Amino acid sequence: MENQKEETEKNGHFYQNSCHTDLAVEMKEEVEQKQELTGVEVSTKKHAYHGITETRIRIVDERGEAALGKPVGNYVTLEVEKLYRDSVQKRIARIICDVIAQLSQGAQNILVAGLGNRSVTPDAIGPKVMEHLQITRHLFECGYVKSDALNMKVVSAIAPGVMAQTGMETVEILRGIIEKTHPQAVIVVDALAARSSNRLNRTIQLCDTGISPGAGVGNNRQKMNEETLGVKVVAIGVPTVIAVPTIISDAMQQLLLLLGADHAGKLVEELSYEEQYQLAEELVKPYFTDMFVTPKNIDEEILMMSQCIAQGINAYINI
Amino acid sequence: MENQKEETEKNGHFYQNSCHTDLAVEMKEEVEQKQELTGVEVSTKKHAYHGITETRIRIVDERGEAALGKPVGNYVTLEVEKLYRDSVQKRIARIICDVIAQLSQGAQNILVAGLGNRSVTPDAIGPKVMEHLQITRHLFECGYVKSDALNMKVVSAIAPGVMAQTGMETVEILRGIIEKTHPQAVIVVDALAARSSNRLNRTIQLCDTGISPGAGVGNNRQKMNEETLGVKVVAIGVPTVIAVPTIISDAMQQLLLLLGADHAGKLVEELSYEEQYQLAEELVKPYFTDMFVTPKNIDEEILMMSQCIAQGINAYINI
Amino acid sequence: MENQKEETEKNGHFYQNSCHTDLAVEMKEEVEQKQELTGVEVSTKKHAYHGITETRIRIVDERGEAALGKPVGNYVTLEVEKLYRDSVQKRIARIICDVIAQLSQGAQNILVAGLGNRSVTPDAIGPKVMEHLQITRHLFECGYVKSDALNMKVVSAIAPGVMAQTGMETVEILRGIIEKTHPQAVIVVDALAARSSNRLNRTIQLCDTGISPGAGVGNNRQKMNEETLGVKVVAIGVPTVIAVPTIISDAMQQLLLLLGADHAGKLVEELSYEEQYQLAEELVKPYFTDMFVTPKNIDEEILMMSQCIAQGINAYINI
Amino acid sequence: MENQKEETEKNGHFYQNSCHTDLAVEMKEEVEQKQELTGVEVSTKKHAYHGITETRIRIVDERGEAALGKPVGNYVTLEVEKLYRDSVQKRIARIICDVIAQLSQGAQNILVAGLGNRSVTPDAIGPKVMEHLQITRHLFECGYVKSDALNMKVVSAIAPGVMAQTGMETVEILRGIIEKTHPQAVIVVDALAARSSNRLNRTIQLCDTGISPGAGVGNNRQKMNEETLGVKVVAIGVPTVIAVPTIISDAMQQLLLLLGADHAGKLVEELSYEEQYQLAEELVKPYFTDMFVTPKNIDEEILMMSQCIAQGINAYINI
Repeated sequence: MENQKEETEKNGHFYQNSCHTDLAVEMKEEVEQKQELTGVEVSTKKHAYHGITETRIRIVDERGEAALGKPVGNYVTLEVEKLYRDSVQKRIARIICDVIAQLSQGAQNILVAGLGNRSVTPDAIGPKVMEHLQITRHLFECGYVKSDALNMKVVSAIAPGVMAQTGMETVEILRGIIEKTHPQAVIVVDALAARSSNRLNRTIQLCDTGISPGAGVGNNRQKMNEETLGVKVVAIGVPTVIAVPTIISDAMQQLLLLLGADHAGKLVEELSYEEQYQLAEELVKPYFTDMFVTPKNIDEEILMMSQCIAQGINAYINI
Repeated sequence: MENQKEETEKNGHFYQNSCHTDLAVEMKEEVEQKQELTGVEVSTKKHAYHGITETRIRIVDERGEAALGKPVGNYVTLEVEKLYRDSVQKRIARIICDVIAQLSQGAQNILVAGLGNRSVTPDAIGPKVMEHLQITRHLFECGYVKSDALNMKVVSAIAPGVMAQTGMETVEILRGIIEKTHPQAVIVVDALAARSSNRLNRTIQLCDTGISPGAGVGNNRQKMNEETLGVKVVAIGVPTVIAVPTIISDAMQQLLLLLGADHAGKLVEELSYEEQYQLAEELVKPYFTDMFVTPKNIDEEILMMSQCIAQGINAYINI
Repeated sequence: MENQKEETEKNGHFYQNSCHTDLAVEMKEEVEQKQELTGVEVSTKKHAYHGITETRIRIVDERGEAALGKPVGNYVTLEVEKLYRDSVQKRIARIICDVIAQLSQGAQNILVAGLGNRSVTPDAIGPKVMEHLQITRHLFECGYVKSDALNMKVVSAIAPGVMAQTGMETVEILRGIIEKTHPQAVIVVDALAARSSNRLNRTIQLCDTGISPGAGVGNNRQKMNEETLGVKVVAIGVPTVIAVPTIISDAMQQLLLLLGADHAGKLVEELSYEEQYQLAEELVKPYFTDMFVTPKNIDEEILMMSQCIAQGINAYINI
Repeated sequence: MENQKEETEKNGHFYQNSCHTDLAVEMKEEVEQKQELTGVEVSTKKHAYHGITETRIRIVDERGEAALGKPVGNYVTLEVEKLYRDSVQKRIARIICDVIAQLSQGAQNILVAGLGNRSVTPDAIGPKVMEHLQITRHLFECGYVKSDALNMKVVSAIAPGVMAQTGMETVEILRGIIEKTHPQAVIVVDALAARSSNRLNRTIQLCDTGISPGAGVGNNRQKMNEETLGVKVVAIGVPTVIAVPTIISDAMQQLLLLLGADHAGKLVEELSYEEQYQLAEELVKPYFTDMFVTPKNIDEEILMMSQCIAQGINAYINI
């Protein structure tokens, strides 16, 4: 899972992602409530028939970076009302295919990295995607397939596991593999943390700026992006959990609205969102920092989402 | 997982388990803060060397039932500081063995039911226990083992899955199997909901009053006890999750302490615990009722706990 | 997995399935080489575009029973060249749906039993099918769905595990559940043993005469059919393994052909198929009776087949 | 799984492992029947109480290499009668610990590579071992543990999957990871092919010459040894399958004994073992080359074996 307190170092300072979400689209919503958004281009498209909303956010300069707490680059978010219909899954797979083509600039040789812990259901989406992929690299390498004979891309894949299982930073593992097998691009698939529960398992984010995988504490987690991996990175993420302080901070806000404009409440009401979040963190410390919130039917949703993403990647392999 | 809002019907009225925990020991702590405990016998024993606390709660009459929101019967809770040492696991297994012997009144023919959803990590403890059990019934039935030749009990087991997977009430499935295979007692193993995070995956509760498995909404979930199953029931539960309203209600309480004795706060401060919980539920509705909080390393802890419980049951089989 | 030495008791005597296959279509081929087939009706249909062969065998009387070693009833076999194309899977699912409708006589309330051991890959097809099923019974029972409002059947499911895991005969478990939940028909899904390797994971057999699950020794394995379960039974089987004596007996036959018409070889050449099989069994005893032969990529094939069968059952649920 | 037709290139020529086993101890037995063994030192030790036989084979020069078809180095084989007793598992774990210490020359920083396909039961032993390992490297790297403060080794681990899942040679993946994380030694754990069924899941082989993982075809499978990985390699293997031609060739031999000294049989009887094996291969081609033979209770045996090996590695980590 992504670390929910993502920091991006830039010009020697950290700017904080104050929304505690891994979703650019949630950041945007949060920020728009308070200020005008500059340095960011946003376009939205509704696929009305299938109930899919596609939001493309482009962070174009440092002002956008500072506003959204994420580096310059492209962020495509797909939100779906109901994933259960076959035709909806097909449509999403098609869009994923197109976005991969765009963000990877048509890479012909890709490594898919399914991040996360396969033994913890909401963190298993990366390894699960790998189970449904069409792997081709060994067919080319062994000479079973000629690269010019077929309209098929070279695909390899790995589900390296998490640091508690491997003892290694995922970025070390991937960098080592990339140097030996020379893909043109890496597609990393990972579980994310969202801010609002109604985005869980209903949203797919694709971006070309990489990700920072994390297990909560996360301060020394290493980023996976073009700079650290040495090749283009397309990150595909699905929010499957919410951080505990996030829901507490939300509940607090509602509680204070309820209490009304009295003096005592004022104290808290005047806090900025970030200060409220820190307060929420204080309240739940020390027990909840390594915990997360996830729905009870997470197994069904992970299965559905992973099949859908694998379909999208497989479609890209065969165009 | 157990339903966190357990209700027990008795004499035509419902008395509510106001603590939103499946653990008798947490109920007891909660109640003791407010009133004297009557109708309940409590004894505590420390296994100092192994860091295990064993609390035996006996609810002897209706006053005890009303106070703790649980039916008359025996509740044994084992709390452990660190489960990781081999010698601690052995000691716990030994205690589990003894408690099963006591609560099942020495049943010689048992069915173990591993409840829960094996595909959702914190709910998989029941099915996981089944993987490590020594199954013997078919050896007796096929004549490979003579009942008098060996000091071994007759053991069968089933992991029926949850209602979303089977479409059936677990109690229907178990009742059907019991009528065909005639065990003297059923040991049900299930994941529970706790109130405090430091009890998660560190506590084992054994009782002879059965359980009410639940998937959140749970109002028509059927109890599994001697009355509904027709044979003695020993329930073994491990708290692996916390309900979302529980942690919010806790955070709220702390927030109000922080806000101090001002007028606005007063409104909420004066609410009873139960009213606070209902307020917390309101605040998180409708999104969080089917969600739970669980630690990130839940896979390791479930593995450890399930092996330990299986060892305890296996020890009972061979005494 | 089915027991490969299937015996059917009839009128006080056992007639032996001399072909050591669970597939009616392989029995038919075997028998046709030696004698005219009486008491059996066969029709074959080619779905040329999708590369599917559909063979319908109807055993109409005792002569057919004796010839094919299987009870009176209907056996539909689907053989597919390549399962990997999406359109082929859809076509098969459609046929499965139609055959279930026919063999279950349009049952509106069904229990699906996914037999086999989920921890042994070639035996996991039953439990795997269950993962992809649409379960509805609890929706009707809880009142979420009105039976007349929707064109949807009542479906429940169970993957009981094998006798080494449960200590119980699967037929005991199913009978108990059926008596409590009252389905009109049971669909049992199980792995089968085939005779020829090119039918492995390429064939689906549906029949209305039930099955005899088995773990090799199998002499006291209980049949699952309308008589023992008390409701209609539709058995869906996929051959995923071959018995060790089968492949040895085949190799022997070829070896003897190779040795030619000399005196020594004659001895063996003159043996009937059944005698050859017994000889093969002798040769591999005592070590290989509890072993089976299976392909190395069995995981991929089981995944594909189980999804396809689940699609077929789901289609039936919604017609 | 290891490729059953292991070839070792040496001085420009291939010498064939004519026994079609991955076990040095089976090679030795085979060869001893025909010729005196030179260039090989053998010592055997019985742990009578625990029913464990420990055979140490040292191939000291090219004569030994040619005789046993394996490179110069040390091969320790543990054979156990019954693995089920706790005390036997402990004893084996202890021996494994000692042998690792010897073969790795006391490496303080190790990478454990659990080879094989976790989705195919008999091939899952490598990944299963990884589930029970104590991983420590990240604790040192993050500064939680000081290297001098604790008597604990630096351990990392990876279960890379097989080529059909990754599209990459396992040796490429491991080499990349080793170059980034700098272990002093690699412990590779893999499933092997045995020759005789009574060694399946009852034998553990440890050697310092690496292994050649394979998926049947195997001719371009790359070896994993000190030369290709750049660090010391300790290979731990458990035979979990038998190749199909192996059992057929055995059955053939017995059939011919049975047929007696007649002319026809002579033809085959006069074939060398290797020629017989090739004949067996011909007979089963083309269908059985990608198949294997494995016992029906393989899940239980893999679980037991993997726990036992993990215990052994964990013991080494803590000495």
